Amino acid sequence: MVDLPDQFVFNTFAFLIWGALVMWMCAGFTMLESGAVRTKNASMICLKNIGIYSIAGLAYFIVGYNIMYVDVGDIFGSFEFLYGPSGAEKALLNGDESAVGSVVDNGYAVMSDWFFQMVFVATAASIVSGAIAERIKMWSFFAFTLVLTAFIYPIVGSWTWGGGWLAQEGFQDFAGSTIVHGTGGWAALAGVLVVGPRLGKFKADGSVKTTPPSNVLVVTLGVFILWLGWFGFNGGSQLALGTPADAVAMTIVLVNTNLAAAAGVIAALAVSRSILGRIDLFAGLNGAIAGLVAITAGPTMVDHWWAMIIGAIGGLLCTIAIKVLDIVKVDDVVGAIPAHLVAGIWGTLAVTIAAGGRFHIQLLGIVSIGAFVFIASLVVWKVLDMVMGLRVSTDVERMGQDVAELGIEAYPEFVLMPEEMD
Amino acid sequence: MVDLPDQFVFNTFAFLIWGALVMWMCAGFTMLESGAVRTKNASMICLKNIGIYSIAGLAYFIVGYNIMYVDVGDIFGSFEFLYGPSGAEKALLNGDESAVGSVVDNGYAVMSDWFFQMVFVATAASIVSGAIAERIKMWSFFAFTLVLTAFIYPIVGSWTWGGGWLAQEGFQDFAGSTIVHGTGGWAALAGVLVVGPRLGKFKADGSVKTTPPSNVLVVTLGVFILWLGWFGFNGGSQLALGTPADAVAMTIVLVNTNLAAAAGVIAALAVSRSILGRIDLFAGLNGAIAGLVAITAGPTMVDHWWAMIIGAIGGLLCTIAIKVLDIVKVDDVVGAIPAHLVAGIWGTLAVTIAAGGRFHIQLLGIVSIGAFVFIASLVVWKVLDMVMGLRVSTDVERMGQDVAELGIEAYPEFVLMPEEMD
Amino acid sequence: MVDLPDQFVFNTFAFLIWGALVMWMCAGFTMLESGAVRTKNASMICLKNIGIYSIAGLAYFIVGYNIMYVDVGDIFGSFEFLYGPSGAEKALLNGDESAVGSVVDNGYAVMSDWFFQMVFVATAASIVSGAIAERIKMWSFFAFTLVLTAFIYPIVGSWTWGGGWLAQEGFQDFAGSTIVHGTGGWAALAGVLVVGPRLGKFKADGSVKTTPPSNVLVVTLGVFILWLGWFGFNGGSQLALGTPADAVAMTIVLVNTNLAAAAGVIAALAVSRSILGRIDLFAGLNGAIAGLVAITAGPTMVDHWWAMIIGAIGGLLCTIAIKVLDIVKVDDVVGAIPAHLVAGIWGTLAVTIAAGGRFHIQLLGIVSIGAFVFIASLVVWKVLDMVMGLRVSTDVERMGQDVAELGIEAYPEFVLMPEEMD
Repeated sequence: MVDLPDQFVFNTFAFLIWGALVMWMCAGFTMLESGAVRTKNASMICLKNIGIYSIAGLAYFIVGYNIMYVDVGDIFGSFEFLYGPSGAEKALLNGDESAVGSVVDNGYAVMSDWFFQMVFVATAASIVSGAIAERIKMWSFFAFTLVLTAFIYPIVGSWTWGGGWLAQEGFQDFAGSTIVHGTGGWAALAGVLVVGPRLGKFKADGSVKTTPPSNVLVVTLGVFILWLGWFGFNGGSQLALGTPADAVAMTIVLVNTNLAAAAGVIAALAVSRSILGRIDLFAGLNGAIAGLVAITAGPTMVDHWWAMIIGAIGGLLCTIAIKVLDIVKVDDVVGAIPAHLVAGIWGTLAVTIAAGGRFHIQLLGIVSIGAFVFIASLVVWKVLDMVMGLRVSTDVERMGQDVAELGIEAYPEFVLMPEEMD
Repeated sequence: MVDLPDQFVFNTFAFLIWGALVMWMCAGFTMLESGAVRTKNASMICLKNIGIYSIAGLAYFIVGYNIMYVDVGDIFGSFEFLYGPSGAEKALLNGDESAVGSVVDNGYAVMSDWFFQMVFVATAASIVSGAIAERIKMWSFFAFTLVLTAFIYPIVGSWTWGGGWLAQEGFQDFAGSTIVHGTGGWAALAGVLVVGPRLGKFKADGSVKTTPPSNVLVVTLGVFILWLGWFGFNGGSQLALGTPADAVAMTIVLVNTNLAAAAGVIAALAVSRSILGRIDLFAGLNGAIAGLVAITAGPTMVDHWWAMIIGAIGGLLCTIAIKVLDIVKVDDVVGAIPAHLVAGIWGTLAVTIAAGGRFHIQLLGIVSIGAFVFIASLVVWKVLDMVMGLRVSTDVERMGQDVAELGIEAYPEFVLMPEEMD
Repeated sequence: MVDLPDQFVFNTFAFLIWGALVMWMCAGFTMLESGAVRTKNASMICLKNIGIYSIAGLAYFIVGYNIMYVDVGDIFGSFEFLYGPSGAEKALLNGDESAVGSVVDNGYAVMSDWFFQMVFVATAASIVSGAIAERIKMWSFFAFTLVLTAFIYPIVGSWTWGGGWLAQEGFQDFAGSTIVHGTGGWAALAGVLVVGPRLGKFKADGSVKTTPPSNVLVVTLGVFILWLGWFGFNGGSQLALGTPADAVAMTIVLVNTNLAAAAGVIAALAVSRSILGRIDLFAGLNGAIAGLVAITAGPTMVDHWWAMIIGAIGGLLCTIAIKVLDIVKVDDVVGAIPAHLVAGIWGTLAVTIAAGGRFHIQLLGIVSIGAFVFIASLVVWKVLDMVMGLRVSTDVERMGQDVAELGIEAYPEFVLMPEEMD
């Protein structure tokens, strides 16, 4: 046996290191999104994303964590403000060595779990910004982010990881295919439906205007960052490292995570020609994310080839969904709904195949979380639309939010092609 | 209790992992600075920054660490060359298991502390390059970097972390708001004053020429890199992980670090409209850095809301200082002086609020380190100006250092706007 | 002594964390290469590199690891499919606590070593893509990648790290100057010779067409990523962290790694003016990589100044080799052969100076691995050339692979200079 104090250090350090990698995912989303939008809105995406991470980190400290984890009944926890180290920890830091026993009994430093959970909130919020980019007002977006990270996400979290009613039903979602990525995806979908497609995206003749990523290198960098960060996202969700069994389990999680992502890339590239009409780099990149999202709900199977299958199907479904969104005229700028929501639903169901979940409970979780997040988000978006307005003016949208709202350009010295406006 | 050999491994590994993240901050500075300068000087920034990290790493190995940490009297340590593992460590590696006791008694592998301290030196030097970008000669800059990393910074370090006179007075600076960021900031200020503003920055009619970041995405990426790296910078400065108390303390440091940065962003964005006339992304990004710098001197308070206040004030002061520098016609290209020096002074004083420092001692440290670094840097810059020349010719400055000194362009195939020269 | 269960956790966690950093090197290669090619081929490099990492990860899972490590005779291991946790690990995860003894006796979680080795395969394959960029067909390249990662690299690995004939001879290559970087370099050289130089690279009058990096910032970012990742690459190759001796050794490895890279930069910059006619940023960046490659075979010496010398010579040889390749009209787009193959040979020999290898055995390893990889690669490239064709058409090459094969541009809104075609 590993002694308890050693376990405490291992567990705490794992939360910190893996949490740092999850924070890094915010940079990944920022690069992915700012490279995927048109140049005229790229600076705004940068601002929104550093804003998201800041707002999420403060909101989760001030109210979110308490709602999600403290005194959780069935559907939410405490509405107290702020969170902090335990009394025993404070005593230990003040030199009271007799407190070490009760500190260690907690298994990990109290705030190390807070740190790890906090970076997850930011991930959920980051998913939204890409989907509704290029036409949503900055302040309205920040207001939504605040509600999402202070209330909506924590409530979903209280149902599940916080020990609420869905956890009691046996709903399984290891690192959040539905809890994080589904929540982000549903919130994004609600936003996209309320704010509508970008000007000229869907033409009167039924054709779809191509809006390729303005900076492919930056998008690719973003995906690599996300892939790396996902080792923290899934690996850290083992929530412990202090025993050989934990170390083995964490290892298996990382291996499955990587295999699913790799299979997602290959599957998406393989089908992109037939579905999208060309070998599509963007589909391949989204395939990586879809594979990662799909494995996130249950990356614990010891037969690793299942991870390849789950990831590959994730990549396939994501590519199909990219096409479907175009057909149903839903304008998701970066493919967040295909990669996070669609692959997340698949992944949450796939838990029943290899990682031991029960189908009807998984479905219950998907539907109930989906319904709650979608409806709550819809209400918030609608209210914001009435109060502040959601959508920038046509002039701002044509000009781009960078110049119109921020007064800067992303690359002020570079000469850009004039956009066709038709 | 965690056994001593386990403590040794924990402590050593923490130095290595967190140190690796601090090294990553050099990439952050490189991106921040190369995206913030005009395109014509972006390659030169890349070269300077990889040069800084290389020079700093060699100089600190050859003389710096010894001056800072070995046989420190009141104001500096040893002037021996090179540094290396202890005799006991060498014996252990040669298979002498009896040496393990004295190896372990040191608490951490000797060179793991060296590694961690080495990446800090590079940080201090990186701060300088951004402020004086776009007009300083490469070789003169490298010569200054050598002096800074081999002598100036190590002497400051010997006064404080090395156990010299300021440490004996009780000066507190957990991870270097003043020791690292103040040193970098004062050295930068001296350089900026000697070399003067860029051509045309401050016009005869009193107006200031806007020089927006040439690549906003890259600047944003740089800030995210710095934020991530700061977890290593502050977390690793706990200098130990081997006991539950250390693990708790390191956790608290990370939480405070993140809260301060988030609050810095929000505060800077909130005041940017009234101070700078618009919601300013660049102010928000610098606000993150200012929040991080401000918390660096004392990120140990268990009442985490203090971290939000300290970070927010850091972001606020930084935004004000950006404006003030324009008014007093000091041309700091990337805002290094506001973000590192101003926020660093604030952070060093703020230690007295929540982390237990004494005000007059903190002030003594700020003033004495500031005076030493500023005067020493001024002398070195002046000498270099006489010997090698500091400033590129007017032709080089107009043409840009990339083409004039390196014979390349940062983006050779991209069409750029002709710069207005007036 | 550290207890065995603690050792198990330390060793496993080190594989996972350092392995994650090595995965990050794939992002480094992607940035380095996509910034180094001309803009018209940058998206293709992004696609190739995410494809490499995905293919390598799957191929190594399906067959590679078994060939390299399982039941290795003299020249290869098992041809079984798939790999997975041990029976004891599965029992432990199923709650059989009695299995913990045999789990722990393995020293690390079985798949944590797989994870760490898997990211190494991807590195070897990444080296190839840069050298033969801008003219090789995507599908042919992917087919080669599959053979390299499923068979060629694992066979080399079985000779050495797998315990085969070269290991029995006493060949030393700590983290793979020859096993990884030499293998990648020889495979790249074979590819470059078969596919030939880019159109117009070597003109009839003997002059060489300059093809500067299309995005210097991205190249620089790539090098910083690689440098960071190399701490994982070399540090993790200690293969253990669970004892004080391991922790000391890992520390020494990181220190030497950093010193060698720094010295490589400075040496390459210093000689670039005389060899290449200017202070050459690209040479300096490649110097970092060459220094890293050179130290990789033997980063264990306790006299750290040797690392500076080995790294500096690596940077020097790399810069010379860049020039030589131009003279012999070998078109290596990113300098992969100088930085990986040439510096790798030097590093493998340099082991004899300070880290205890025997010269003739090191030479034997270099020659036998070189001959095998070069000939095997040559055969594969030739077969692919006959079956699928290796080289894109002249039209595709002029137009760029991005538009011609992928139907996108890397920066679709940016105005680019028309390329001179002569």
